[in-house]
Amino acid sequence: MTLEELMVKQREFARARDWERWHTPKNLVMALSAEVGELTELFQWLTPQEAGAACAEPAARAKVEDEIADVLLYLVRLADVLGVDPIAAADAKIGRNEGRFPPGVGRTALER
Amino acid sequence: MTLEELMVKQREFARARDWERWHTPKNLVMALSAEVGELTELFQWLTPQEAGAACAEPAARAKVEDEIADVLLYLVRLADVLGVDPIAAADAKIGRNEGRFPPGVGRTALER
Amino acid sequence: MTLEELMVKQREFARARDWERWHTPKNLVMALSAEVGELTELFQWLTPQEAGAACAEPAARAKVEDEIADVLLYLVRLADVLGVDPIAAADAKIGRNEGRFPPGVGRTALER
Amino acid sequence: MTLEELMVKQREFARARDWERWHTPKNLVMALSAEVGELTELFQWLTPQEAGAACAEPAARAKVEDEIADVLLYLVRLADVLGVDPIAAADAKIGRNEGRFPPGVGRTALER
Repeated sequence: MTLEELMVKQREFARARDWERWHTPKNLVMALSAEVGELTELFQWLTPQEAGAACAEPAARAKVEDEIADVLLYLVRLADVLGVDPIAAADAKIGRNEGRFPPGVGRTALER
Repeated sequence: MTLEELMVKQREFARARDWERWHTPKNLVMALSAEVGELTELFQWLTPQEAGAACAEPAARAKVEDEIADVLLYLVRLADVLGVDPIAAADAKIGRNEGRFPPGVGRTALER
Repeated sequence: MTLEELMVKQREFARARDWERWHTPKNLVMALSAEVGELTELFQWLTPQEAGAACAEPAARAKVEDEIADVLLYLVRLADVLGVDPIAAADAKIGRNEGRFPPGVGRTALER
Repeated sequence: MTLEELMVKQREFARARDWERWHTPKNLVMALSAEVGELTELFQWLTPQEAGAACAEPAARAKVEDEIADVLLYLVRLADVLGVDPIAAADAKIGRNEGRFPPGVGRTALER
């Protein structure tokens, strides 16, 4: 499945439930933010070592996948409502980042 | 470009700069969260009407695209580091949501 | 109760449970962020009118108070761990904001 | 200065600029969330050791204090608009947490 197909599927999911009226940009930004909060909650008390192995155990992996899914679904829905192509935007941003951060140039912790 | 190709491009971007050491799950969740904060900032004081037209004007659209790009890039990078396929996870989640929220069943504001 | 007394109470709560080892700045910033996500979730689908009346009904008010409490508790705990006086910092910030935003000067939506 | 006095000062700041019309619960939750994002950004790439010393250096301390200030100011403003006493809510929450988490009871990483 492509991201475009996921976007269409999510759009039709909203339409079939008459949820488009709730899917305003502000509401979707808030929903995206709340889902990132749930993803954050999974990792907040883990040591770096535990966090690195967060997907080693099936039940923990399922929780992480579930929250990553929610974040992606609201991000895609927001992009759809705003008429933004998220992959094209991200690819263009990588291009700008390549100019801002040339490889091989050291950075201090503050500039990271 | 597919999301998988974007993920590989972002992975190589990190590798070329020796940034993989910073790209731990906890750090990437925090970076994702900070970028959602920047996206939120663009919309926080807008009226619903203004937010609906947030991409009508080219300079404002560029800002929105830039923040959606950053959110997607960190989400994809996090998924890569954790070994999660974000589209497959999101598609599976839509399937579960179809069971949880059958079309045509009304919902109150609290249950939305 | 003062905010300083709340900070001490929260500090002793952590100490009595041997939770100080988890209360690193990064972990507490993540916990703060996750709690703001829960607060956001309460408001995300509400219309502006519904959100304005979010505390009119006792059960809904209790949820809002519970999340505001969690946000304040983690903010105070983070400030304590970092050795920051949050009220002094906030009062100093209001002073700077008074210089940045003189009363009576109109602002556009973008500058808000 | 007490938190109550800070709340009144922040209320008068908003009133003097005619900003009360923007200070709806949804907008303030978004602003709070965006400020937590800026606080998160300060810590996202730091190692645990660097984060522990985030306030050791004056310029870095000033940035942390500035973001903690912004978070507290929007939290207090939101509580004011909603008619919530944040310290009373937080104190009541500590009381509930004392019942939920008795001292001396071990917790696993997942339950933390």
